[in-house]
Amino acid sequence: MGLDDATVKPHERLAAYLSEDLAAVDALIAERMVSAHAPRIPEVTAHIVGAGGKRLRPMLTLAAARLMGYAGPHHRALAATVEFIHTATLLHDDVVDESGQRRGRPTANLLWDNKSSVLVGDYLFARSFQLMVEPGSLQILSILSNAAATIAEGEVLQLTAAQNIATDEAIYAQVIRGKTAALFSAATEVGGVVADATDAEIAALHAYGDALGMAFQIADDLLDYEGDAGATGKNVGDDFRERKVTLPVIKAVAAADGTERAFWQRVIETGDQQEGDLDEALALFARHGALEATRDEAFGWAAKAREALGHLPDHELRGMLSDLADYVVARLN
Amino acid sequence: MGLDDATVKPHERLAAYLSEDLAAVDALIAERMVSAHAPRIPEVTAHIVGAGGKRLRPMLTLAAARLMGYAGPHHRALAATVEFIHTATLLHDDVVDESGQRRGRPTANLLWDNKSSVLVGDYLFARSFQLMVEPGSLQILSILSNAAATIAEGEVLQLTAAQNIATDEAIYAQVIRGKTAALFSAATEVGGVVADATDAEIAALHAYGDALGMAFQIADDLLDYEGDAGATGKNVGDDFRERKVTLPVIKAVAAADGTERAFWQRVIETGDQQEGDLDEALALFARHGALEATRDEAFGWAAKAREALGHLPDHELRGMLSDLADYVVARLN
Repeated sequence: MGLDDATVKPHERLAAYLSEDLAAVDALIAERMVSAHAPRIPEVTAHIVGAGGKRLRPMLTLAAARLMGYAGPHHRALAATVEFIHTATLLHDDVVDESGQRRGRPTANLLWDNKSSVLVGDYLFARSFQLMVEPGSLQILSILSNAAATIAEGEVLQLTAAQNIATDEAIYAQVIRGKTAALFSAATEVGGVVADATDAEIAALHAYGDALGMAFQIADDLLDYEGDAGATGKNVGDDFRERKVTLPVIKAVAAADGTERAFWQRVIETGDQQEGDLDEALALFARHGALEATRDEAFGWAAKAREALGHLPDHELRGMLSDLADYVVARLN
Repeated sequence: MGLDDATVKPHERLAAYLSEDLAAVDALIAERMVSAHAPRIPEVTAHIVGAGGKRLRPMLTLAAARLMGYAGPHHRALAATVEFIHTATLLHDDVVDESGQRRGRPTANLLWDNKSSVLVGDYLFARSFQLMVEPGSLQILSILSNAAATIAEGEVLQLTAAQNIATDEAIYAQVIRGKTAALFSAATEVGGVVADATDAEIAALHAYGDALGMAFQIADDLLDYEGDAGATGKNVGDDFRERKVTLPVIKAVAAADGTERAFWQRVIETGDQQEGDLDEALALFARHGALEATRDEAFGWAAKAREALGHLPDHELRGMLSDLADYVVARLN
C-alpha cells in the first residue's frame, strides 16, 4: 500500500513519512517516563501512552520542523514534550470528568486510583518542562509554557461553563482553544521556531495548528451526539449526561422557545435528567439545525487551516497537512 | 519590637528584613493568579495563598539572592515561581490526601471540589513555568524543572510507600526530599544563580536548603504524633489514620518483635484500625525510643544546614538563616 494511495488516511501517511522521527520520539518517551524510584509512574504512563493514540500532536511538531527544512535533533525532544503535556492533561481530565473509559479501554483512574492519575500527571508535566529546556530556546519555552497556561485556564473555564446554558459561542471558543487548539498550535509553532523559520512562517504554522485544533474539537463535540461507541470509544451523549455545554447545545439554546429553554435548564442546569431526555435533545437539535450548523463551523475551521498552509513552502508534508485538515472533519460524514 | 529581639522568630525577622521584596512578590502573585476568563482560578488561589502561610519558600530565594549581593529584579519573579509551585502542590496534595483541613481552615477541595483543585493547581504550575522563563536563565529553568520532577516523583513514591511497612529509611528520605527538601533547595539555589554566585557558593546554598527541608519535614512528621491540633492546625495521628509510613513508624517497625510487627501489619497494611490503636502506637514508640531517635535526626539535619552556611559570605541574613535552621527543630520542645 503506497503512501499516495487515497485510501490511506492522512495521519497514517504522516506517520509513515515521519516513521524514523516517530520511532525516536517513542524511544525518548519510554526513556523519560522511567522513574528509578516509583514504578507506578511508568505503569500508569505506559497504559495511556500505549493506548493506541495517533500521536497526532508530536507528528505536528515533527512535520512542521521537517516542512521548514530542519535537519537537527531537537524537534524530537519537542515532539516528546508535546506528547507528555498531552498525556498529563488526559490523566487529569479523566479524574475531573470521572471517566471510566478512554479509547475503549478502562482509564488509569479506574485501574489505579485518582491519586495516581493526579500525581503521575504532575510528574509527566514536570518531565515535559525538563525536556523543553534541552533545546535551549527561550522562545520555545515561552510558547510551550503559555500553551500550558491556556490549556489549564480553558479546563477551569469549562468547569464553570458546564451546567450553565448562558455559555455562549465566545466562551465555547475559549474552552476548546484551551482544550485542544492551544497545544496543536504550540506543537506546530515550536516546529517552525526550532527550524529557524521566518516570523511570517511561524505565524502561519501557528494559525494552521490553531484552526486544525478548533476543527478537530468541534468535530469531536459533534460526534459525541452523532458517533457510536464502537467507532469512537465514547458513549453517545456523554457530554449531555455530564451537562457540558458544547456547540450543538449552545446553538439549540440560542434558538429555543420558552418550553425548550425550560427543558435545557432542567437537563443542563438543574441536572434533573430522565429517560428519553437525550432523544428529546436530539429532536431539538434537528428542529433548529444545530448539528448542521456545528458541522459548518468545523468545516470552516478546516478551510482556515488549509489557507494558512498557503504561506508555507511547497513540500510533500504540506500536502499531507492539508489532507489532515480535511480528514478531521471528513469523520462528520 | 526590634529585629534583634530574641523573642522574634527567625522567619519573622527574615520577613521584616525582606519586607519590600516580599510585598513585591505578593503583588506579583496577585497579578499573575488573575485569569480574565476563569474567575474560579483567583478565588481558589486566594483561598490558599491567603491562608496565612509563612512564605518560607519565596523568602529562601529572596534571602539567598540578597545574601549573595544581588541587586537586580529577577529574584522576585523566582520567589513568586517557587510559591506558585508550592501552592500547586498543596492543592493537589489535598485532593490526594482527601484532606478537609489545612492550617485550621477548610481545604479548597472541600470548599469547591476536587476538580477545581486539580485544574487550578495545573494552572498555577503552568503560571510558575511562565514566570521562571522571564529571567532568561536556562540554568534556573533546569534547576526548577528538575525540582518539579523530584517533587512529583516523591509524591508518587509516597503513595506506594504508604501502607507498606517494608518502607525503609532510604525510601523515606526520597519521599521527604520530594515532598519538601527539593523545593527548599531549588529555592535557595536559584537565588544564588540569579546573583551570579560561584559554583561552590551555589552548592552550599543548595545544601542549606536541602538540609533545612529535611529537618523541617522530619520535624513535621514527628509533630504529627506529638503536636496538638490547636498549635499545628493538624489532628494528632492524621498520618497514622492515613496509614503513612513516616520515620517514627519505620523506627518502631525496625525494632518490633513478632507481636508488634503483627500490630503494624494490621493497622498500616491491612488498615484495620480500632479504638485505642493510636495509643498503642504511641506506647510502642515510647518503648523503642522511636520519637527521640526521630528528633535526633531532625536536629542532625539542622546542624548540616548551619554547616553549609559556613561556605557563604558573612552577612546579617546568614545569621537569620542559621537561626531558622535551629527554629524548625526548636518546635520539637
